[in-house]
Amino acid sequence: MSHFLKTHIRELIQLTDDEFEIVQSLFTKKKFRKRQFLVQEHQPVTEIYLIEKGILKSSTIDSTGKEHILQFAAPHWWISDFAAFFKQEFSSVAVDCIEDSEVYAISYENLNILCSKLPVMERFFRIKSNFGYVALQQRILSLMSKTAKERYEDFLKQYPGFIEHLPKQLIASYLGVSRETLSRLYS
Amino acid sequence: MSHFLKTHIRELIQLTDDEFEIVQSLFTKKKFRKRQFLVQEHQPVTEIYLIEKGILKSSTIDSTGKEHILQFAAPHWWISDFAAFFKQEFSSVAVDCIEDSEVYAISYENLNILCSKLPVMERFFRIKSNFGYVALQQRILSLMSKTAKERYEDFLKQYPGFIEHLPKQLIASYLGVSRETLSRLYS
Repeated sequence: MSHFLKTHIRELIQLTDDEFEIVQSLFTKKKFRKRQFLVQEHQPVTEIYLIEKGILKSSTIDSTGKEHILQFAAPHWWISDFAAFFKQEFSSVAVDCIEDSEVYAISYENLNILCSKLPVMERFFRIKSNFGYVALQQRILSLMSKTAKERYEDFLKQYPGFIEHLPKQLIASYLGVSRETLSRLYS
Repeated sequence: MSHFLKTHIRELIQLTDDEFEIVQSLFTKKKFRKRQFLVQEHQPVTEIYLIEKGILKSSTIDSTGKEHILQFAAPHWWISDFAAFFKQEFSSVAVDCIEDSEVYAISYENLNILCSKLPVMERFFRIKSNFGYVALQQRILSLMSKTAKERYEDFLKQYPGFIEHLPKQLIASYLGVSRETLSRLYS
């Protein structure tokens, strides 16, 4: 029985061991190496991922070939192209590994089975979806109305402990600034 | 019994008339005039709103006094500072009426009572939260990686039928362009 998965879910809801067996049976453990993709752009998105180990990012490439980073994710975070997953459409962002990673994957079908069998999991995923919404709202307000320095400070608050794990180029891309500007923010 | 509220909820889940009576008892109908605020910045956010009539917006004012628009909302949309509401923190966006509006309001306490009494409402709000997430993800990708013309096209797709109801200044603010740039996009 996965101690990690159980701890993660029990942070928000109560489950008996029998109920947790159902949960666990619907997840698949997967390992990915640095630079491997979990979701590629313009493909069906069949799963969402809970991270046990590693660091991942979701990003999009614009028409000039430039990468824009939507989010980073570390252990206990969820990642995917949630928009495409929930709408069962092709992805508009890619998800790949910044480090070797281990995740728990659940498919669209299994998510629906899980919520039907255990309605309390609706609550779990409602709360998680609300948290995801909160993170995106902060990101939009940051992008729309803040200076590069304020965006950098928001980044440090939102991703405590991440900074030493991320290449500076990726942080610059997340903030929407050049490497040179980022160096000035560091100092 | 509110036909509007019942129709809105039954689009996603099934409820008996008795169950719907519980739902309705936990909502409050409210009317607001053009320019009135439902949520003000830096205040507690006690309710979320389902719009029956009118058009509203959520926005933030930056340190230079410039308004940035997070979203517009019309009948059958929900609006609030959801981030502040779910985290029970002070608001970072304001919500006000672009036209005279009528809404169904539900408080944080009543939302929790509702989901406890009728677990199927967890499903309703999970799906709604997912939709909200999808809209924000599209907004971020638009802000990060698209040209003004592409953002304008995204706006038309996301808000069909809105354009004739919105002052051009607000559309320009939503897109993050000047009035002059917006005029060029129209033509």
